[in-house]
Amino acid sequence: MAEYIEGKRPVIEALRTQLPIREILIADNLAHDELVKDILRKARQAGIAVSSVPRRELDAKSERGSHQGVMALPRPFEYVNLQTLLDAAESRAQESGGAALVVVLDHITDAGNLGAIARSAEVVGASGIIIPNKRSAHVTAATYKSSAGAILHVNLCQVANIASTIERLKTQGFWVAGASEKAEGLIWDANLKGKMVLVMGGESEGLARLTQEKCDFLVRLLQAGETGSLNVAQAATACMYEWMRQNR
Amino acid sequence: MAEYIEGKRPVIEALRTQLPIREILIADNLAHDELVKDILRKARQAGIAVSSVPRRELDAKSERGSHQGVMALPRPFEYVNLQTLLDAAESRAQESGGAALVVVLDHITDAGNLGAIARSAEVVGASGIIIPNKRSAHVTAATYKSSAGAILHVNLCQVANIASTIERLKTQGFWVAGASEKAEGLIWDANLKGKMVLVMGGESEGLARLTQEKCDFLVRLLQAGETGSLNVAQAATACMYEWMRQNR
Repeated sequence: MAEYIEGKRPVIEALRTQLPIREILIADNLAHDELVKDILRKARQAGIAVSSVPRRELDAKSERGSHQGVMALPRPFEYVNLQTLLDAAESRAQESGGAALVVVLDHITDAGNLGAIARSAEVVGASGIIIPNKRSAHVTAATYKSSAGAILHVNLCQVANIASTIERLKTQGFWVAGASEKAEGLIWDANLKGKMVLVMGGESEGLARLTQEKCDFLVRLLQAGETGSLNVAQAATACMYEWMRQNR
Repeated sequence: MAEYIEGKRPVIEALRTQLPIREILIADNLAHDELVKDILRKARQAGIAVSSVPRRELDAKSERGSHQGVMALPRPFEYVNLQTLLDAAESRAQESGGAALVVVLDHITDAGNLGAIARSAEVVGASGIIIPNKRSAHVTAATYKSSAGAILHVNLCQVANIASTIERLKTQGFWVAGASEKAEGLIWDANLKGKMVLVMGGESEGLARLTQEKCDFLVRLLQAGETGSLNVAQAATACMYEWMRQNR
């Protein structure tokens, strides 16, 4: 998220999707057309600083050479640490008769899927999402867009090791369900009551073997189609809603 | 879908997502770099005709001027008529103890959402999707991509009038559930057994008043978050899985 967002329409899109922006740079010789006026208006409404700078400064900062005289610098996304996420889950469990949900994403690679899952996780009241800090999607402008801004309201935590993190969650009283197409049991028949961890695998590989071994049980969604498979964000949403149904 | 797909990477993406292509045009003076070789290989595997033509022919056909010497002409998407969709639902109901699902999308505007819903609909075994033929997303390259090709395996039907189509579905023995955040009852408490129509509203407006009046009942998904709302494709997936759960 350190990279600049370049160009009039991408900057408008970033403002529209509530991506937190540190500052906007505008070339001092830029004609103020309708798009530029829209940027200035949105920035003023959001209280974002706009600096007028020589165009050569934009040229120097630009990686893509597509700035059109406008660039925006996003704020770094603020991940939470694991303890914060656990505390949130514990409070939630105490408030709601013992139920809490933590979602673990085992090497999801698409930043848009991360945002889509975050959006649904926020809606079902999940206490947080855990992702690996390597070989995994992290929060980008695409995540803000697909989450419709919900990523700002979700505890997102990066960890070095998914397997040992699952172990730690177990010691905190969580049951761990791994979603896998190879599971014997359907999610509808599993007991998802109480403090649950839902582990979703990556887009192409699914759950890693080691991750799978750490799960208390595996569950799958029934699939009746002839050809397809679910997108991971759609599968996560269906699973999260089944957790919610059992814990209503 | 009559418009050409222009440029090396967009054509590769179209081939990768199984978009049906009538022919590929390549400029006769084009250097065969790795991308072009990949296009020729994928086209051969898929049995798609590739024609070498003068570059000026591409220039003349190009709308965006971004063809890079390569253009692909998609085949028009083949929508089904309503009777075909109804016949499929009837067969499905007879095979599965009376259960069938038809999804009506009341002015969804995002072609990507249409594809995401089609992908989930295919997986749950829905008999078809009905969309309006005006002021609605139709099938584009974005639909193929977000459906991961599943759009080819779904009965998709365009109708002139959603309200009168719902009336016709009712005369065929369907119950009609409209998804609305304003519904009193939760979808978990509704009876979704048997031949159901699930009506989803558009991204910004939700269900139109007239559509809503035609529904037998309204249902909503419980939302526990503080800020957000579900994406329509995620909401549709959760609702379709609840239909599936009740009809397993």
